[in-house]
Amino acid sequence: MPEQQRPVTIRTVACIGAGVIGGGWAAYFLSRGLTVRAWDPAPDAEQKLRRVIDAAWPALTELGLAEGADPGAIELFGTAAEAVAGADFVQESAPEDLALKRALLAELAAAAGPGVVVASSTSGFPMSDMACEIDPAVAGRLVVGHPFNPPYLIPLVEVVGGERSEAWAVSAAADFYRHIGKSVIEMERELPGFIANRLQEAIWREALHMVAAGEATPEEIDRSITDGPGLRWPVHGPCLTFHLAGGEGGMAHMLDHFGPSLKAPWTRLEAPELTPELRDDMVDGAEVSAGGRPMAELVAERDRAVIAVRRAVAAARAAGAGTDPAGRS
Amino acid sequence: MPEQQRPVTIRTVACIGAGVIGGGWAAYFLSRGLTVRAWDPAPDAEQKLRRVIDAAWPALTELGLAEGADPGAIELFGTAAEAVAGADFVQESAPEDLALKRALLAELAAAAGPGVVVASSTSGFPMSDMACEIDPAVAGRLVVGHPFNPPYLIPLVEVVGGERSEAWAVSAAADFYRHIGKSVIEMERELPGFIANRLQEAIWREALHMVAAGEATPEEIDRSITDGPGLRWPVHGPCLTFHLAGGEGGMAHMLDHFGPSLKAPWTRLEAPELTPELRDDMVDGAEVSAGGRPMAELVAERDRAVIAVRRAVAAARAAGAGTDPAGRS
Repeated sequence: MPEQQRPVTIRTVACIGAGVIGGGWAAYFLSRGLTVRAWDPAPDAEQKLRRVIDAAWPALTELGLAEGADPGAIELFGTAAEAVAGADFVQESAPEDLALKRALLAELAAAAGPGVVVASSTSGFPMSDMACEIDPAVAGRLVVGHPFNPPYLIPLVEVVGGERSEAWAVSAAADFYRHIGKSVIEMERELPGFIANRLQEAIWREALHMVAAGEATPEEIDRSITDGPGLRWPVHGPCLTFHLAGGEGGMAHMLDHFGPSLKAPWTRLEAPELTPELRDDMVDGAEVSAGGRPMAELVAERDRAVIAVRRAVAAARAAGAGTDPAGRS
Repeated sequence: MPEQQRPVTIRTVACIGAGVIGGGWAAYFLSRGLTVRAWDPAPDAEQKLRRVIDAAWPALTELGLAEGADPGAIELFGTAAEAVAGADFVQESAPEDLALKRALLAELAAAAGPGVVVASSTSGFPMSDMACEIDPAVAGRLVVGHPFNPPYLIPLVEVVGGERSEAWAVSAAADFYRHIGKSVIEMERELPGFIANRLQEAIWREALHMVAAGEATPEEIDRSITDGPGLRWPVHGPCLTFHLAGGEGGMAHMLDHFGPSLKAPWTRLEAPELTPELRDDMVDGAEVSAGGRPMAELVAERDRAVIAVRRAVAAARAAGAGTDPAGRS
C-alpha cells in the first residue's frame, strides 16, 4: 500500500455527533486515555456531551481507566472539518438519515488525513449505500464501525467495509477497536443491519406485532425477557443456548426434536428450510461455540453465570430503589 | 366452585417426563421442600433424573434451599397414573409431540384427584389443541405452565388456559408457581409460542437464515449477542432498552427517529404498520416498564447492572476455564 495509506498511530479521535451514541463513544475514547475532538451542530452540543460523559465516567472508572485518562481531554469545534483536522481516527455518529450520512461522510472523508479511517456508527446502512457518490480518492478510508448502546459499556463493534472501502482501512479500524478493548466482529460482506441488529430487530418486530394485536403488553414483553431467556444470553448466545437445550444430544438432538416447530406459527417470521446442510452447519457451529467443552461443563458454567447475573441485576436495581437484593425476582 | 374443584394445598408434585425440563422441574420442586413422584418411560429414567438433580443441586443450594429440602425426596413409579395418584400438582414435561401430549394429558387428567391441576411444560402448543379430545369432566384442570431451561434457575413461567380450562385451575397454577418463587406471566388468551418463545423464535429463525445464506457463522451470531445486546436484556427488556436508546426523548424519540428503519431489510420478519395507536401504546408501555423513573436513573441502573453482569459472566467462565476474570471481554 502507498505510504500515505498506512494506518496512523491513534492518539486523537474525532467524534462527529454528540447524541447518546456519539457522546458514549467520546466517553469511552477518553477513558482509554485518548484525546477527543468533537463536533455537533446542536447549539447545546457541549452541555449534551458533558452530560453523557459525566454520567458514563463512574461506570468507566469502575471498569478501570487507562493511564492518563482525563474526562476533560475533549474540545468542541465549530465545524466538522476542524474537528477532523489533526485527528488520527474519525467516529461518525450522526442521526440515522441516509442523505445526511452521505453528505457528512463525504465531508469527513475529504477532511481526514492520509491513513486516517473514518468509521460510521450507522445502525444498519451498508457503507456501499452511504459512499456511492463520494470521491473515490478518499472513499477508501470509509468503513462501518457499529457499536451498541451504551458504547462505553457494551463491548461489541461490528466492522465491515463497502464496495469502495480499502482493505487496510477495514483492518485498521478492527485493530484499533480491539486495541482499546472492544469485541470486534469483522464481517466479510455487507448485510443490512449487520448481525446483532438483525437479531434484535427480529425480536423488536415480533414485539410490535404482539402489542399491535393486543396479545401482550410492553411490560409483559420486557419481563418475559428479563426473567426468561434474557438471563441466558449474556452467557451463551442463541446457538449455544439451544445446544444446551438438547441435553446430552446437544444441537443435533435439539434440531431433530424441535425441527418441526420451525413450521409452527411461533413468530411472524417465516423459517428457512431446515436442510441437512443447514442442520449440519448448526451442529458444527455449536461445537465451535462450545469450544470442545463437554455438556456438563457448559451446564455448570451457565448455572454459575445465571446465578451471578441474577444477583448482579437484583443488586443493581436495589442500589437505585432500595428493594430486596436477594436476586429472587 | 364445587368443593372438589378448590385447589388443594400443594406438598407433593408429580413430574411426568425426566428429560432436561422434567428433571429440572423436579430439582426445583425438591429445593422448595416439596416431595416429587416421577415417571418416565425410558429404562434409564432414574439415572437421568438423578444426574439432572445432582447437577442442579449446587446452584439451588447457592440460591438458598427451603427448610426441609431434600434431593432424595423423590420416588419413581412404573406408570404415569401411579405417579399422579396422591400428587397435589402435576407437571407434564414430555417430548414436544402433539399426539403424544394429547394421549398423555388425557391419562394424567383422568388420574389426577379433584382440585389437582395438571400443568404442561409445552414449548408452544395451545392447551385447546392438546385437550380437544379429553373428557370434559376432567379437561378443566389442564393448563399450560411453560418454564425456561433450566427450570431450576430461570424464574419465568408462562401460565395460560385453553378453551376448556377452568378459571380456578389457571389461578391455582399461577398462585402455586408464584408461591414457590417463580416470575409468572398469566396470559388472558392463547397464543402459539406464548410470549417469550415467540421473541426467542424470531431471533432463532433470523439466525438460521443468516447461517443458511452464509452471512454469519453460529459463533459470530452467539458472540454478537453475548458481547452485544445480550448484556442488556437481563436488565431491561427490548421495550425498555429502546426507551433508553431514545435518550432524553425516550421511546417517543426512538420511534420517531428509527421508525423508518422498520421498513429496512434488517431482518426477514415483516414489520407491522407503525400506526399512531401502536406508537402511543409503545410509548405508554415504556412508561409503565420505566415505573415512572427518570431517564438518568434508568441509565445509572443499566450501567451498574451491565458492569456487574459482565463481571459475573467473566467470573463464571473463568471458574471453569482458568482465564482472566476481569470482565473485559
